[in-house]
Amino acid sequence: MTKKIAYFGPAGTFTEGAALMHDSESQLLPFSSIAAVASAVETGMADEGVVPIENSLEGSVTDTLDLLIHESSLVIRKELVLPIDHCLLVRPGTQAHEIKVLFSHPQPLGQCRRFIERCFPKAEVVAALSTAAVEEMMAYDSPSAAIGTKRAAELYGAEILALHIQDQSSNVTRFVVLAPTDHQRTGFDKTSICFYFAEDHPGTLCQVLEEFAQRGINLAKIESRPSKESLGKYFFLVDLEGHRQDSVVAVALERVRERTALFKILGSYPRFGDMK
Amino acid sequence: MTKKIAYFGPAGTFTEGAALMHDSESQLLPFSSIAAVASAVETGMADEGVVPIENSLEGSVTDTLDLLIHESSLVIRKELVLPIDHCLLVRPGTQAHEIKVLFSHPQPLGQCRRFIERCFPKAEVVAALSTAAVEEMMAYDSPSAAIGTKRAAELYGAEILALHIQDQSSNVTRFVVLAPTDHQRTGFDKTSICFYFAEDHPGTLCQVLEEFAQRGINLAKIESRPSKESLGKYFFLVDLEGHRQDSVVAVALERVRERTALFKILGSYPRFGDMK
Repeated sequence: MTKKIAYFGPAGTFTEGAALMHDSESQLLPFSSIAAVASAVETGMADEGVVPIENSLEGSVTDTLDLLIHESSLVIRKELVLPIDHCLLVRPGTQAHEIKVLFSHPQPLGQCRRFIERCFPKAEVVAALSTAAVEEMMAYDSPSAAIGTKRAAELYGAEILALHIQDQSSNVTRFVVLAPTDHQRTGFDKTSICFYFAEDHPGTLCQVLEEFAQRGINLAKIESRPSKESLGKYFFLVDLEGHRQDSVVAVALERVRERTALFKILGSYPRFGDMK
Repeated sequence: MTKKIAYFGPAGTFTEGAALMHDSESQLLPFSSIAAVASAVETGMADEGVVPIENSLEGSVTDTLDLLIHESSLVIRKELVLPIDHCLLVRPGTQAHEIKVLFSHPQPLGQCRRFIERCFPKAEVVAALSTAAVEEMMAYDSPSAAIGTKRAAELYGAEILALHIQDQSSNVTRFVVLAPTDHQRTGFDKTSICFYFAEDHPGTLCQVLEEFAQRGINLAKIESRPSKESLGKYFFLVDLEGHRQDSVVAVALERVRERTALFKILGSYPRFGDMK
């Protein structure tokens, strides 16, 4: 039976690009939200799910973090890092000076702010619900443009008016493959965890970080997310180097578990090859 | 001369509510982006600016954090915490079962997800650029609704069809007043800082947190934001209890400055009264 991979679609988005990079042999199934991708995998509609988790300019994709913390039993099996290259797409024949309306999801719009402010200061910006704002643009009456991918241009028959319109060329997005189980040890791994303290007093977080520092375990990332209970109470998410089955990591994680009111391993998986 | 207060508008948003709570005597000037509010204050068009910085369900307003870290010389002079109470607004006379289209900014939409999924599973969701999606709804041809405030209902002549539609009643947003200088000591203060490490090795962050812990200074918040250079390099933002002029805080901040490659005090200001 063909393996099925759910992704945060529609086709033509960067997430589809990540799903293709992950596994171009399987059947790809687009879903319209990050939560829907998780539900598809949890219920067996798909074997794995691909969702974005972090962009180098905009930061974390909070829907994905909150899903992993609060809602899903799925774990991270793999990470993928893709360069994000935005194009300005138009209906074939549309000239730059004619453009009155610009369709974009807020995130790509934020990544191309300088270009838009300089070249299209007067364009009316219409927020679209996904990076495939291209479809809306193609159906729009008067001359308009959309921020989209090269693949979206192909899929929807749009013309590429401008290339590499993002403000910073170092724009990359990290995607994760969600699955019921994480990845076996490769010796070049990363582990994501989240935890929560019942009470805050000076130094609680520091004591946890010390468990890693004193064992020489490097942290790739630390981030806080609201507990959703009240302002000032946070979940912490930490990405650390090593696999949860590495003996030194296993000991550190056990100590952290003892020090926290809530502790969850979000998965161990191979570090993406050329990630900096 | 009347004091002028810029805020992230338009009128009818929660930020206007925060600006009114901050100072209802002054002239309020709406601006269409968080960056525009900062520019208004930096250039003397306004004396102070009010912007959202954090929601208890959705987390940080990253535009505000990135502005404070990377772009602005303004500092935080005050914080305000407002309960966020969303209403479902319609054109007078519209019935619930007629609603085909729902206008909302993605953030309020995320906060009312359960209500929308249950009561309007088939409504087409149209993303709007601000919480004043109400204006768009009022101008729309067929029966539609918008997520908005009570005040927006008044301002735009809309009818309130449902009240308190947010998923969690503990939904509050923290706003900050930005100004050229921060607040004098009150004895009940908070200080926001940000810093950056030139090199990561196990324990760098921990050493910084230790400077606060060993002096009994409580941290209200710790958060990371992308450096925008490459994935895996972060700025850290810390909110701590105390004023930068408190002697024990002053010493800790000086030590942190020495341990970091980049260090910025984002302001000392009174802690909001009933904040938990």
